[in-house]
Amino acid sequence: MRILFLGDIVGRAGRDAVRDALPPLRRRLAPDVVVACGENAAHGFGISPKICEDLFAAGVDVITLGNHAWDQRDIIPFIAKEPRLIRPANYPPGTPGAGSILMTDARGRRLLVVQVMGRLFMDPLDDPFAVVQREIAAAPLAGPPGRGAHAILVDMHAEATSEKMAIGHFLDGRVSAVVGGHTHVPTADAQILPGGTAYQSDAGMCGDYDSVIGMVKGPATERFVRKMPTERLSPAGGPATVCGILIETDDRTGLATAIAPVRIGGRLAATAPEFDSAGAAS
Amino acid sequence: MRILFLGDIVGRAGRDAVRDALPPLRRRLAPDVVVACGENAAHGFGISPKICEDLFAAGVDVITLGNHAWDQRDIIPFIAKEPRLIRPANYPPGTPGAGSILMTDARGRRLLVVQVMGRLFMDPLDDPFAVVQREIAAAPLAGPPGRGAHAILVDMHAEATSEKMAIGHFLDGRVSAVVGGHTHVPTADAQILPGGTAYQSDAGMCGDYDSVIGMVKGPATERFVRKMPTERLSPAGGPATVCGILIETDDRTGLATAIAPVRIGGRLAATAPEFDSAGAAS
Amino acid sequence: MRILFLGDIVGRAGRDAVRDALPPLRRRLAPDVVVACGENAAHGFGISPKICEDLFAAGVDVITLGNHAWDQRDIIPFIAKEPRLIRPANYPPGTPGAGSILMTDARGRRLLVVQVMGRLFMDPLDDPFAVVQREIAAAPLAGPPGRGAHAILVDMHAEATSEKMAIGHFLDGRVSAVVGGHTHVPTADAQILPGGTAYQSDAGMCGDYDSVIGMVKGPATERFVRKMPTERLSPAGGPATVCGILIETDDRTGLATAIAPVRIGGRLAATAPEFDSAGAAS
Amino acid sequence: MRILFLGDIVGRAGRDAVRDALPPLRRRLAPDVVVACGENAAHGFGISPKICEDLFAAGVDVITLGNHAWDQRDIIPFIAKEPRLIRPANYPPGTPGAGSILMTDARGRRLLVVQVMGRLFMDPLDDPFAVVQREIAAAPLAGPPGRGAHAILVDMHAEATSEKMAIGHFLDGRVSAVVGGHTHVPTADAQILPGGTAYQSDAGMCGDYDSVIGMVKGPATERFVRKMPTERLSPAGGPATVCGILIETDDRTGLATAIAPVRIGGRLAATAPEFDSAGAAS
Ligand SMILES: [Fe+2]
Ligand SMILES: [Fe+2]
Ligand SMILES: [Fe+2]
Ligand SMILES: [Fe+2]
Ligand SMILES: [Fe+2]
Ligand SMILES: [Fe+2]
Ligand SMILES: [Fe+2]
Ligand SMILES: [Fe+2]
Repeated sequence: MRILFLGDIVGRAGRDAVRDALPPLRRRLAPDVVVACGENAAHGFGISPKICEDLFAAGVDVITLGNHAWDQRDIIPFIAKEPRLIRPANYPPGTPGAGSILMTDARGRRLLVVQVMGRLFMDPLDDPFAVVQREIAAAPLAGPPGRGAHAILVDMHAEATSEKMAIGHFLDGRVSAVVGGHTHVPTADAQILPGGTAYQSDAGMCGDYDSVIGMVKGPATERFVRKMPTERLSPAGGPATVCGILIETDDRTGLATAIAPVRIGGRLAATAPEFDSAGAAS
Repeated sequence: MRILFLGDIVGRAGRDAVRDALPPLRRRLAPDVVVACGENAAHGFGISPKICEDLFAAGVDVITLGNHAWDQRDIIPFIAKEPRLIRPANYPPGTPGAGSILMTDARGRRLLVVQVMGRLFMDPLDDPFAVVQREIAAAPLAGPPGRGAHAILVDMHAEATSEKMAIGHFLDGRVSAVVGGHTHVPTADAQILPGGTAYQSDAGMCGDYDSVIGMVKGPATERFVRKMPTERLSPAGGPATVCGILIETDDRTGLATAIAPVRIGGRLAATAPEFDSAGAAS
Repeated sequence: MRILFLGDIVGRAGRDAVRDALPPLRRRLAPDVVVACGENAAHGFGISPKICEDLFAAGVDVITLGNHAWDQRDIIPFIAKEPRLIRPANYPPGTPGAGSILMTDARGRRLLVVQVMGRLFMDPLDDPFAVVQREIAAAPLAGPPGRGAHAILVDMHAEATSEKMAIGHFLDGRVSAVVGGHTHVPTADAQILPGGTAYQSDAGMCGDYDSVIGMVKGPATERFVRKMPTERLSPAGGPATVCGILIETDDRTGLATAIAPVRIGGRLAATAPEFDSAGAAS
Repeated sequence: MRILFLGDIVGRAGRDAVRDALPPLRRRLAPDVVVACGENAAHGFGISPKICEDLFAAGVDVITLGNHAWDQRDIIPFIAKEPRLIRPANYPPGTPGAGSILMTDARGRRLLVVQVMGRLFMDPLDDPFAVVQREIAAAPLAGPPGRGAHAILVDMHAEATSEKMAIGHFLDGRVSAVVGGHTHVPTADAQILPGGTAYQSDAGMCGDYDSVIGMVKGPATERFVRKMPTERLSPAGGPATVCGILIETDDRTGLATAIAPVRIGGRLAATAPEFDSAGAAS
């Protein structure tokens, strides 16, 4: 299975870039499933039902969230009835929405997408290691027919590289891929871990990189310098780079055969993989 | 001027890889100056005088430190008399050593190297924005002959991408490059900011990437899972990737003409720039 | 039931003071049960089996721990077989020892003692609110004979006053008392909350108050000033103040009828309650 | 000199209680100067010019702020021209207002009031140890006539007891008193340090103690339990306890001769010192 994961979509610039880039990316990379993090899609803070619908229409199959999940309040009733929108699984029991989705692709293969949130330098939620383990137990890789998953993608929304790498190794051999989000900067550490799990610490954002993590740079910088309130932070509006990760998995084992970064448009050096039919990056 | 910056060297694996990779890299990339962060060179924690001497002998011109600066106590008298070893400039007044060095390359050009440490999710030191501004005022780009610098490299040792990007914009047009360290993961956001300053959020580490930020993955992962003491953390010993950044500057303006990541060996996808004689990446 | 809770015992000074003060305090205050936090008893860091035995011999019935639980490694096998020593209940499943003890006093009444640890500004453990709720469900106040508890004491080992007050209100009417530890400074906010639960944010430490939270003041202060390593921190050795809280409960409802601070010896203003036979402070 | 310091005034309940309690307290305790922290006076968040005027009219001589300094924007122009309103001295250079005031009491004695903010678990400002030292150097205790101060009060607005105790010892013998604020809970550790400086870790708040640090307890507790947005936090409106600290100093040395807590009204145990004419608590 081929999975395209897109990092945090920030504001209109990010949304527009994803909408424009996704059709050609779908043709060029031929992903079976597209997953995108939408926690900053609504003017940098949260996401609205309307934006979710637009992203689904643009070709996103599953939207994940993060620490900005609830910044827009009307998403709360929406997530309760939209299984394609998931939030970190390690929110407390009783939190609206689900932390994972077991979906079926066009060819009938089952993909489990789980999001968890890190705790280092972040709000203390339930233990992401324990929670992700519980979530994947419900649909293990290469599990019995009708119960297992052909592939499992874990979106680790976290700040610290140590916690991200640790959960990568913790899940190595048990999931297809662990990909990170939240820092809004793509990392250049894509690799397949020894046990067969594809890993990249952060996908980066889909947003304008002439900014401070996607927000207009003047006020965001001033907050560090002056320690005074500034005008409200808002998303930078320059051309966005669509940042993501392409992963190829072996349907039989569920493990990864290739992983490569995707960067299209905007200020960052462009890259996109050419996976051959055998699923190896060339 | 062409500057090669190498990210945090972790343990023996990192040291060996740097020692082996630097001579061919010097030939291939022809840097005028090599700067490397050595804060994790001594078994993951700090650096010793002996290791400093080895790195200088291997072709490193300036060593920077970070939050692990003082993990090895014998570095304290050493830094007091070795100007090529610098520590974050925003340690309190009275801290041993200097936070910058104004050096001269083989062609007589002056390069100011400054290290500052971020404060977000880190120990609260003096304001890195104010301190770096003070440091560069002593040798401004394109300053009067004999007082200015031909190039300025700022090593922002920090955790948070927001603080790193903010200091990049804060210094844009006033320094040649702002490069980050500390997360031990290379970022794929190399760019020249609008004002002419080269920027990359993190250079990554020179270390084994089958690890948790360079340390043996078993115990480091277990600390997240069990919340119990484990055996002492020690550096992973597999083949290291040498991670760095190559920057080309215009001697007249001091601003950057090119920036590109360098990754050699180990588990990460290899890359190295080919800068043409005009200093543009091709 | 009358319960005496003693705050974090720090080093030899704290241990000696508790050993000397406890017999007269037992005579004067007539507690049915004495609970003490021992996480700093062993030279400031953790506790040893030998010190546990000494504290039990001195009249402590239950010892709690905290974030320093495992600083002395030989406590790990010890806690596995000593139910009178408990650690925070919100450590991950599989952690050695228990997070609560249901004990019986000399008159056959059942007291449940639970310790949980806060997460704000501390290591992220499991949710203390959810965990404490689960623990008290096993032996509710005024529960069916043979299953309920006559009194429940919750030791909230936490940094932030907001989290401590929140858990106080969360448990108000469901436990006899919520008392805090960890900051090593006694608070003057003892009260009975509207639902009948006694509350004090922090019991304070049993240690020398001419110190930085019990440790020798010179090096501990220098760490803030110089941001350099200092000599190892060790407990201050001057006369210790024994700091604690006395709580009186109604055996029928399990709710509190009185709460008052106890401070004996050392540098702080001495205080000790005089509860009359009806259990009200006078 | 006799100084009354009142802790963080929270919302209308706190303001009303201070206004009502201050006249009788002035008669009973006869302070020469009253200093109060007003950072939460305006509905919990910041302070307005109007509330400042009301507090001055009620008998407060100096108002300090804290991390909530700028929550109400119209205080920014106000502080620029009102020297009796001060903010933490360790905000960056260029911050509106001053971090200290050298005032003269009715008998012509000079009192320096300085506020600094801690950095542990708080926003990283400039070094409070270095900044407070610089501030007191301008008007040292027992300094030359016309330049020194008869008394110096330091308001350490901070979260961590360790940092508060450290700055107490750092300043011991050089200032009259170090009193803390910000946690909104009074501590019971009033003492005169060996060098003669009066010290108490936190004055507590002037607010309703049936709350979470002064805010309505329901939503504030729910934020810990559910990790979802709640209704806006607002100050609890029940009867407030006025919490403060009374300090007596020796005009000749500037050092403290007595310190005692003050608590009036609301839910906490009431206390107020009786200092005799020689300035000792009796
Ligand atoms: Fe984000
Ligand atoms: Fe995020
Ligand atoms: Fe570092
Ligand atoms: Fe490092
Ligand atoms: Fe403790
Ligand atoms: Fe503790
Ligand atoms: Fe406050
Ligand atoms: Fe505050």
